[in-house]
Amino acid sequence: MDVNEKIDTLFNPKSIAIIGASKTIGKWGFAFLLHLIKGGYKGEIYPVNPTVDELLGIKTYKSLREIPGPVDVAFVLIQPEQVSRAIAECGEIGIPACVVITAGFKELGPEGMKLEKTVANAARSAGIAMVGPNCAGISSPHPMSLYCMMQPNFPPPGNIAIVSQSGNLAGSIQHMCWKQDIGISRCVSVGNQALLKTEDFLEYFITDKQTHLVLAYIESVSDGKRFMEMSRKLTQEKPLILIKGGKSEVGVRAAKSHTGAIAGSDAAFDAITKQCGIIRVDDVEDMFDTAVAFLSQPVPKGNRVGIVANGGGWGVITADACSNSGLNVAPLSEKTLQALDNRLPPWWNRQNPVDMVAGMSRGAFFKAVEILCKCDEIDSIITLGFGYGKPFADVIASITDGENLNVTEYVKGAIDSDKRGMHFLLDMIKRYKKPILLSSEYIIGADRDKNEAVLDLRKKNVLIYPSSRRTARVLARLVRYGQYLQRTLPLS
Amino acid sequence: MDVNEKIDTLFNPKSIAIIGASKTIGKWGFAFLLHLIKGGYKGEIYPVNPTVDELLGIKTYKSLREIPGPVDVAFVLIQPEQVSRAIAECGEIGIPACVVITAGFKELGPEGMKLEKTVANAARSAGIAMVGPNCAGISSPHPMSLYCMMQPNFPPPGNIAIVSQSGNLAGSIQHMCWKQDIGISRCVSVGNQALLKTEDFLEYFITDKQTHLVLAYIESVSDGKRFMEMSRKLTQEKPLILIKGGKSEVGVRAAKSHTGAIAGSDAAFDAITKQCGIIRVDDVEDMFDTAVAFLSQPVPKGNRVGIVANGGGWGVITADACSNSGLNVAPLSEKTLQALDNRLPPWWNRQNPVDMVAGMSRGAFFKAVEILCKCDEIDSIITLGFGYGKPFADVIASITDGENLNVTEYVKGAIDSDKRGMHFLLDMIKRYKKPILLSSEYIIGADRDKNEAVLDLRKKNVLIYPSSRRTARVLARLVRYGQYLQRTLPLS
Repeated sequence: MDVNEKIDTLFNPKSIAIIGASKTIGKWGFAFLLHLIKGGYKGEIYPVNPTVDELLGIKTYKSLREIPGPVDVAFVLIQPEQVSRAIAECGEIGIPACVVITAGFKELGPEGMKLEKTVANAARSAGIAMVGPNCAGISSPHPMSLYCMMQPNFPPPGNIAIVSQSGNLAGSIQHMCWKQDIGISRCVSVGNQALLKTEDFLEYFITDKQTHLVLAYIESVSDGKRFMEMSRKLTQEKPLILIKGGKSEVGVRAAKSHTGAIAGSDAAFDAITKQCGIIRVDDVEDMFDTAVAFLSQPVPKGNRVGIVANGGGWGVITADACSNSGLNVAPLSEKTLQALDNRLPPWWNRQNPVDMVAGMSRGAFFKAVEILCKCDEIDSIITLGFGYGKPFADVIASITDGENLNVTEYVKGAIDSDKRGMHFLLDMIKRYKKPILLSSEYIIGADRDKNEAVLDLRKKNVLIYPSSRRTARVLARLVRYGQYLQRTLPLS
Repeated sequence: MDVNEKIDTLFNPKSIAIIGASKTIGKWGFAFLLHLIKGGYKGEIYPVNPTVDELLGIKTYKSLREIPGPVDVAFVLIQPEQVSRAIAECGEIGIPACVVITAGFKELGPEGMKLEKTVANAARSAGIAMVGPNCAGISSPHPMSLYCMMQPNFPPPGNIAIVSQSGNLAGSIQHMCWKQDIGISRCVSVGNQALLKTEDFLEYFITDKQTHLVLAYIESVSDGKRFMEMSRKLTQEKPLILIKGGKSEVGVRAAKSHTGAIAGSDAAFDAITKQCGIIRVDDVEDMFDTAVAFLSQPVPKGNRVGIVANGGGWGVITADACSNSGLNVAPLSEKTLQALDNRLPPWWNRQNPVDMVAGMSRGAFFKAVEILCKCDEIDSIITLGFGYGKPFADVIASITDGENLNVTEYVKGAIDSDKRGMHFLLDMIKRYKKPILLSSEYIIGADRDKNEAVLDLRKKNVLIYPSSRRTARVLARLVRYGQYLQRTLPLS
């Protein structure tokens, strides 16, 4: 098996041993086993603990050698000084891959570094693909329903891969995905990267069919040349969205004590990301916003954005936000203006942003979007104010209708029209291959998770951003990735 | 009555007439009446409509003159060319204040401008304080439970005042407040400002006891000198948080067609905001984030921030975000380090950000916060990762406990400890007068609105931000306002 095949086993194991499984709530040896079980893992689970017969209803083994069947992956959660012995034993019984959760190595200084080297050597000489040490585990929902991580996060199967030098960041991203029903393909917390490195996983993701885009958190790069090579290959196929921890002096200092990372100049790193078409983001929310747009939206041909606003002020601040993000809120052609004239009242503002004027029908709103989809002078669209009608419908629904006001019909009409509108937008994206991003302060908090039209959109990986600034920033990244591809791909 | 007294009547009317009330769902004359009723208005409501006897269960009057009692405020929703006549009539029967919702004036060009002048003259010569035209109405939850606006948003009574040149922005802000249980004092959509202007409301808010901070959306300033004078007076008493629409060329163009605003250079405006201690923000989410922090947090003495992280990666990116926002992630004194040594394991990172290391108890986390509260070298604190424990407790709660694992106790302990922790933080803020901001990606979506500890915090106007960048940005604004006050206030 080469490294890629071993990583394939890591993400698709038919059987897992948990070395150091524990019966004590609060210990990681308990949590990993519990999360693996609760995640619905479809393979064989072999907890290993010398003093217990059964854990959480599963037969437990005194040692690795007692396990009756073959083991694909061993998770290691024992004392640091015992790890290299356990790894050697894994090698002896033919386990191809290990994930060492145990901390207390390089991150603690010279002594830990020495210990880490013995662990890495044990894995290397046994031909074992080792993740960690000091890591938070692995998720891979498809096909084995594998969730074997420190944090109990269970995002559905999907197409986002995550590789992270921070276990907590890996957890945060998965939590955001899980709670918003966005699927992931793989997640790996690489920890101290004694053997397997971020670059190895980037390479794996290039050809991994489950993965459509990659998220990475890194604090340092050990092999700059290989990182660039793999990033370049990857970004020709799939977007790579990255947070670099340690941009500032204090960040660098913090990263050093976190993973022992020695970061170079941030300006140099930034230049590399631009060369390699890497989309650099600032924090987890930003990463999530961006990732979901890349999952569902086509890459636009250029930076000309059309804004369709359900209200003047919204259009103004979104135009400012677009401009600030380097997007061009482009003038509309006379042809487009005339097409809009036919659908809008005579006093409409005749420019971009297209202001729908208070009280205009939803039909006109969606028609305006379609006109911008069809025209040549706009590459992408931002719509503003979706969800605005729901509070109206809610308050009308509360009327006791003694006066034949047709309350029921009105409310049903409003809800239906929201749902129809969302399907219309999804259809527009597909048909005209222009991104349509939605921004609205009316889709927030608990309401967001109860609105059927919003949930329909989310199933297709389309989010509604509660901030015009976040929306513009995400769109600008789609634009820049498109420009990178145009620059670097051979003409087809 | 002077202008201030008339504005006082606007926000505290004992009776309201709705001129142009309608029985048709979908018309504004219906919506305003409905929202006023559903908002639980405590005064008298007099719908005016020449052809209807009753609307939504309320006796309706053929004309203003038929109304039996005195009217404090008239809302005007009739055709633009009828408005000046109606205003004059209001004057004749002694109504001191009007809110003109009707659009079709200055925003449509020279003809509309002429019409607007006649309306303004009618109000001026009748001595009426007029809001609008082309506005979205007024909210003032305390004491009359007044919600008379285009959009049905019902934020609870509280201490945030909103003055907005955009009705939709006013709606967005109120919606965000409402859905997150943050109270407002007043909201006024000033529209075309034919008579009453943003500056008049800023002046009113200076002495309005209900108002502790002011949010403003503006596209242009008609009287720069007065705007600066009122802003300066206000910011000595209360924070003024402002969005300026029309920062960019396209934004300016959009603003011109929205409210006829002629914006000056953005750089000049930015200099004014700095001189006047105005806190400038970018969009509604940003405004909301910032407003809530100003409501609940003390203003810090300086820019030195301490970070307490439940995980290394979180600390790194937050240190970067703080640095990027101009905050100083300051070194800790030997005394502080020793105090932390007593509470943390020997291998802790001994620096700021303080990394709690995976698996540390919540007790140690809160103790670390207290140590930073007590020390001299830190002015404010950001904590990371709250809510991280909840998914653990949830998955443990799902265990069928056949093995005496003490599941129930563990889960109860986790939930209690979260709640105790939140109250401890609130107590720390009060006792040490340093802001403590919370950032966590684990408090998002529907979970946020169900977590008791989170709701306890929110009742005290403390939010948990799902982004380290947003958290750092908000804290930096608290710092800058503190520096402004130190610069401008006489020493006490």
